[in-house]
Amino acid sequence: MNELRKDPILGNWVIISPERDKRPRAFARPQEKVKRKETVCPLCSGNEFLTPPEIYALRPKRSKPDTKGWGVRVVPNRFPALGRKKELVSKRLGMFDVMSGFGAHEVIIETPDHNKNLKDQSVEELSKVLKTFQYRIEELYKDKRLRYCLVFKNEGWEAGASLEHPHSQLIATPVIPKRIKEELVGSRNYFKGRRRCIYCDILSQERKDGERIVYENKEYIAFCPFASRFPFEIWLLPKKHNADFCSQTTKKNIPLLADALKTTMQKLASTLNDPQYNYVIHTAPNPISRHGYGKNIDRDFHWHIEIIPRLTRLAGFEWGADFYINPMAPEEAARSLRNANNREL
Amino acid sequence: MNELRKDPILGNWVIISPERDKRPRAFARPQEKVKRKETVCPLCSGNEFLTPPEIYALRPKRSKPDTKGWGVRVVPNRFPALGRKKELVSKRLGMFDVMSGFGAHEVIIETPDHNKNLKDQSVEELSKVLKTFQYRIEELYKDKRLRYCLVFKNEGWEAGASLEHPHSQLIATPVIPKRIKEELVGSRNYFKGRRRCIYCDILSQERKDGERIVYENKEYIAFCPFASRFPFEIWLLPKKHNADFCSQTTKKNIPLLADALKTTMQKLASTLNDPQYNYVIHTAPNPISRHGYGKNIDRDFHWHIEIIPRLTRLAGFEWGADFYINPMAPEEAARSLRNANNREL
Repeated sequence: MNELRKDPILGNWVIISPERDKRPRAFARPQEKVKRKETVCPLCSGNEFLTPPEIYALRPKRSKPDTKGWGVRVVPNRFPALGRKKELVSKRLGMFDVMSGFGAHEVIIETPDHNKNLKDQSVEELSKVLKTFQYRIEELYKDKRLRYCLVFKNEGWEAGASLEHPHSQLIATPVIPKRIKEELVGSRNYFKGRRRCIYCDILSQERKDGERIVYENKEYIAFCPFASRFPFEIWLLPKKHNADFCSQTTKKNIPLLADALKTTMQKLASTLNDPQYNYVIHTAPNPISRHGYGKNIDRDFHWHIEIIPRLTRLAGFEWGADFYINPMAPEEAARSLRNANNREL
Repeated sequence: MNELRKDPILGNWVIISPERDKRPRAFARPQEKVKRKETVCPLCSGNEFLTPPEIYALRPKRSKPDTKGWGVRVVPNRFPALGRKKELVSKRLGMFDVMSGFGAHEVIIETPDHNKNLKDQSVEELSKVLKTFQYRIEELYKDKRLRYCLVFKNEGWEAGASLEHPHSQLIATPVIPKRIKEELVGSRNYFKGRRRCIYCDILSQERKDGERIVYENKEYIAFCPFASRFPFEIWLLPKKHNADFCSQTTKKNIPLLADALKTTMQKLASTLNDPQYNYVIHTAPNPISRHGYGKNIDRDFHWHIEIIPRLTRLAGFEWGADFYINPMAPEEAARSLRNANNREL
């Protein structure tokens, strides 16, 4: 049943070509973990002196920064892509535009425990990680030159992680990342004609169709998108319209968000033998510097998390033309994830 | 010297962060080739019976199809993402758009010799490969339902190749791939204000600046683009304005194009120890079905080849947000490529 499917938000087409591969389990990776030579983990409790001084930590009152006892800890990336010490300078080189490397690049150490990855963290622990994301985004957005703050997690060597210890990262930039910009434009255009949020419309169709849903609780829903670019790609959204990951509603619902994220990750892990993955939080840009996208982002956009397990190699077609061949129908991926046993639940 | 650079055509920003890595040679891969278990290569001369019947071949007159003796041979992909037997049916599923898997997916076997990869092919041999691309694109474009024909090469396992034997592929689709569409829109918008082709303007600045140029001959030029997404990314363009890879001008200049492509690939190989790579030809869409982009594509657009060596792992930041951190300044990459010795030249 090869077919082309259109992403309703971005407008691009994806080839769903399930004949090219087999059953869901065929995507499960044999677990040959690349053993790192790393003898001392710089992110472990007790090794605080190995990171740059901490920016923030959840730690007992009166305990000193950069000492043991923390639950979640935020430090600058040792090799930052962007830095806040620089000034934001923009210039023209002939026909080219350049900006100084102004921004922020932080590492969120999710737990002191080297072996406790996302799916093994309790809802309470994961809630603390999510709250830390919110806190850091809000802090960084006080600087209106930082227009966007991208929070993401690389889990596994091939997914881009260079350290094993459970951690996420954030990069704050004076520009809005391309894909986020496309989502803002796509959702704005959709709203214009219809006075409805495109993500809300997708959710209502997904709930009616049912076949692509992975998990839902009272406030959050996870599903494999209709035009999935990757096998087992999953989007996780608040069911009620909300553009901002840092909003009061999300804050109130953090334990439910943690439940949805943890459950989804457990389902991925048990279906695909602990795959490597990336997830990225797509939220509204800095509210104090939204020029260009206007005051209607809150109305047009809908924040969400995109989860991409790293199961296939990307070829020239994908890298070169941003055109994807997905060897797994999202309906089948969702079915196997829905039916997966969740440990601990 | 970390900085943000804007791609003048697509408008997105790239982080150039060379402190994150070291000298050009540090990107060279140790050559531990994944040994495939493949005992009989289906693309080798003598094994023609292992592929689907050939679509086209350069072979001595009166020799039979699917027999030995060919120079370049084109066969359908054994696991096609899209097929021409299907009808092109477009339908709506609630708010989603779907099309049947109509299209073409072909394999261009570049040489009967299993071990003669692009950089080792003679200019004459490579010219035949390039002419075959042109012939197949023109044949497929007779069907106006095929709006685009993407020609690409995956060299190496991690770059997506599943066979070692030198080959390229083409996928013809009833839609225009996302990145190509963005280039068409970007170059159209640029032309509107200025009455000039953006690629021609970039070329003239690159030739003036000089520092990002890798190689040039009388008709073609290869350089590392100002806002390179990947280390050692290279674009190869005709120096004179030309939107169409299949145009008469390109046909006339094929040996010079082969020279530029071969030389560039040799430079890459000697600088980076034979890296895996992808290249993709970006050319104008089917002239008989350009609706939506208008009759001015020939004026606005400029065909080119994008070469992407696979040297770094892509992380969540890149996959999730289409926002790239490039650990190698294109100026430095170009300098080492320019200075590389070319065998045979």
